[in-house]
Amino acid sequence: MNGAESVVRSLHAAGVDVCFANPGTSEMQFVDALDRTGLMRCVLGLFEGVVTGAADGYARMANVPAATLLHLAPGLSNASANMHNARKARSPMLNLVGDHAVRHRGYDAPLTSDVAGAAAPFSDWIKTATSPETFAQDAMEGLAAAMARPNGVATLIAPADIGWDAGGVVAPPPPPPEFAALDENAVTEAAGKLDAQTVLLAGGTVLEHPGALALLHGIAEKTGAKVLAPTSNRRCERGAGRAAINKVPYPINMALETLAPFKRAILIETVPPVAFFAYPGKPSLLLPAECEVMTLAGLDGDGPAAIEALADCVGASQRIAPAVLPPSPMAGAITPATIAAAIANALPENAIVVDESITGGRDMWGATQAAAPHSWISLTGGAIGDGIPMALGAAVACPDRPVVSLQADGSAMYTIQGLWSQAREQANITTVIFANRTYEILKTELFAVGANPGRSALDMLDLDRPNLDFVALARGMGVPAQRIEDAAALQRAIEDAVLEPGPSLIEAMM
Amino acid sequence: MNGAESVVRSLHAAGVDVCFANPGTSEMQFVDALDRTGLMRCVLGLFEGVVTGAADGYARMANVPAATLLHLAPGLSNASANMHNARKARSPMLNLVGDHAVRHRGYDAPLTSDVAGAAAPFSDWIKTATSPETFAQDAMEGLAAAMARPNGVATLIAPADIGWDAGGVVAPPPPPPEFAALDENAVTEAAGKLDAQTVLLAGGTVLEHPGALALLHGIAEKTGAKVLAPTSNRRCERGAGRAAINKVPYPINMALETLAPFKRAILIETVPPVAFFAYPGKPSLLLPAECEVMTLAGLDGDGPAAIEALADCVGASQRIAPAVLPPSPMAGAITPATIAAAIANALPENAIVVDESITGGRDMWGATQAAAPHSWISLTGGAIGDGIPMALGAAVACPDRPVVSLQADGSAMYTIQGLWSQAREQANITTVIFANRTYEILKTELFAVGANPGRSALDMLDLDRPNLDFVALARGMGVPAQRIEDAAALQRAIEDAVLEPGPSLIEAMM
Repeated sequence: MNGAESVVRSLHAAGVDVCFANPGTSEMQFVDALDRTGLMRCVLGLFEGVVTGAADGYARMANVPAATLLHLAPGLSNASANMHNARKARSPMLNLVGDHAVRHRGYDAPLTSDVAGAAAPFSDWIKTATSPETFAQDAMEGLAAAMARPNGVATLIAPADIGWDAGGVVAPPPPPPEFAALDENAVTEAAGKLDAQTVLLAGGTVLEHPGALALLHGIAEKTGAKVLAPTSNRRCERGAGRAAINKVPYPINMALETLAPFKRAILIETVPPVAFFAYPGKPSLLLPAECEVMTLAGLDGDGPAAIEALADCVGASQRIAPAVLPPSPMAGAITPATIAAAIANALPENAIVVDESITGGRDMWGATQAAAPHSWISLTGGAIGDGIPMALGAAVACPDRPVVSLQADGSAMYTIQGLWSQAREQANITTVIFANRTYEILKTELFAVGANPGRSALDMLDLDRPNLDFVALARGMGVPAQRIEDAAALQRAIEDAVLEPGPSLIEAMM
Repeated sequence: MNGAESVVRSLHAAGVDVCFANPGTSEMQFVDALDRTGLMRCVLGLFEGVVTGAADGYARMANVPAATLLHLAPGLSNASANMHNARKARSPMLNLVGDHAVRHRGYDAPLTSDVAGAAAPFSDWIKTATSPETFAQDAMEGLAAAMARPNGVATLIAPADIGWDAGGVVAPPPPPPEFAALDENAVTEAAGKLDAQTVLLAGGTVLEHPGALALLHGIAEKTGAKVLAPTSNRRCERGAGRAAINKVPYPINMALETLAPFKRAILIETVPPVAFFAYPGKPSLLLPAECEVMTLAGLDGDGPAAIEALADCVGASQRIAPAVLPPSPMAGAITPATIAAAIANALPENAIVVDESITGGRDMWGATQAAAPHSWISLTGGAIGDGIPMALGAAVACPDRPVVSLQADGSAMYTIQGLWSQAREQANITTVIFANRTYEILKTELFAVGANPGRSALDMLDLDRPNLDFVALARGMGVPAQRIEDAAALQRAIEDAVLEPGPSLIEAMM
């Protein structure tokens, strides 16, 4: 057995059975091993950002990582933006990156560059395999690192000869990850601080447990404390019959205003909220300077267990405030409000919503609170181009659930190639393009630095001249598509599309 | 004047007047400065690989770098594959990469990561600006590094506040770069080694000087020595009436066979040739083990001057062997031979050929030797996805010259977004997609490792299921397009397309 086969067999035995791949010459022994063993589902991406974005979406839904297969430092760097997003989501990922054979490394061949150096800024764990005998062990170490609490991105660099040489040994799966122990003193201390000037900031796995969220609301109702989630999160289980949670807003002024009333913050699987960007004359930390901050459960802790202990301590039980679905939109223009209403009403039971709708989707979170129960995964690291691939990965993880992918037009273009993989995998994904034909968020930011933009600046921010035709782009990659300009028609189109198997795309003209 | 404006003004004064950009929030002060000063032509890319690929193509034709404007570490990593290609081409490039404001860096905001770390594997020079007062000076230092012989990739990291704060000071342009001095002893030594068992390997600027190439052939004719160019090169000036040069072949067996006869190699602006990849049982270095290697002019030397001195020494003068244009193809299938003949005959006077045709283009170099005189730029670093952006950059550098972009289908998908920028800039680019619907080169490589591929392996290498429709993709980005299945029709279509202003795309079905 060669090194590559020992890795494939070990990963499969450890529960990793999907590989998102964009291989090159130095990974051919993996392609061969995957082919011969038939142990993993292999999904080809036509660009590496699709590969890691899909692995991110997969892991967020499956709670185990997919493997990725990437080609040398340039392939890795193409993949890095979505490794960054996965890392910020604390989504587990295991990258296998081919490198030149060890003896070839010193010759500065055309594709030679520093693979480990390129991986470092985007990985929590990095190792370079050194022998076929220990290669599978390295892979298991990487898998353990990816699965350790909180999850992370592991990158194993695989010189070609380590993969093709004989001597591979299957390695046993790593032990299951452990949560940090609950701090009983912190529970008592937190219980003593709960009043109307206290905010409970809950992220991580809390948002994936509707029961924990409902308990949190029970605590809030009992004590007067408020509940908020971070701006960006790995996944949230929500919708009708589940407890709602508001997020710290993205715009800095709204975030500061939202958090201004609080004298105390209790953190559960999150850290003190930070502004996305610095702005002249504005703080970086969003909580008031005098706000007292305590941690009930750290990023490596078990937030739901901590919440249960806190609820016991204050005698609170689950509470779910009734939420109201906005009415279906009437015929008329597609605006942030009407697109939100259309999607909220069209969302089928048990859907997965992938949200990279950016400015056009500003009303989405609120409007969908009373929609049919669904999972919500969204851009976390701010590196746009995660939506189309994440939708692919989520659909691979959950083949029986419809995926609704809310996609800003500018962001869509970074990994538009993912539509082809959606078509090849016949994934049930309905992509809604929020077509405002501008990097709208950057216009806001440009005005924020006090500029009065002229033609040249607007040319850097507008996506017109020529207009992007997403219907043509989708069809060019085998995805059926249509353009919709009316809000009521949009709702009907989404309702129809989610019932059809396979992918489709709707360009919603805003 | 703020820091950003001082940089823009200094760059412009130093001859940098084009900026390829995909800015984000942390670069808004640059967008503003570029807008207010109006000193540079700004070209928007919808993905960062387009930005750096275009800057590469621009520099190869203009001999001065364009500036790029990139957003934080994820934007930089999206740009890195084409930084890698530029670096391997020794194409000058100056990247401005925004980072968070200095005071915001420690807070692990969503878009925080190690920008300098991400830049390192793909840059020859890196600096992080530290004050508005010295920011323009830093930019000039970066420009000098990019322009120093041999050219390189310079990356200047620009924290947002250094750009927006007042105190910017315009800095004087760097001195012009200098060639390493000619080694007269090396000339005499080389002259003594010239016979039929000697190969003159000439790269770098030699290929950009038809006179130097003709002299090299005069030397060869006089002494019996052979002349070869490296497999990948920054630019070659060639075509009817210019001296032809063969390249070291890409396939390792052909390369070894080509170089086997030589006992001596004389290097001019190049290094000893290395195999692209390592293969079991094959050497990494392509020259025979016992071959004696000497350097007449290093990578930082003046190859054409060295060749002139060598020609003087042996009493050789310019020689141009007549080359023969293949006949126009008859009606029939598009194959590597007929597509080469069609393009060779269709190529207009003074065209720029951008070559990322990979396996489908294996006959291109030979067939076009007697085509109308043209410039030839091609993929250098093996990181596919350079062709569409390089064509954009070349067209921006030379607005009066037609660009013919030879593009493999698989590679095209890495930076397909560049077609939109071609349309926006109304660049006269005719893209010919070599549509064989497979990563053909990887199939060869897979067989080379002894595999007998099954369905899963072929699925990683084939681009069918669904077929990519490049006509739809191009139209979706505003580029007129057609599909051609006949070789004679292909020649006519290219002849027509180069006469039309603006971009067009021809999907040639192979």
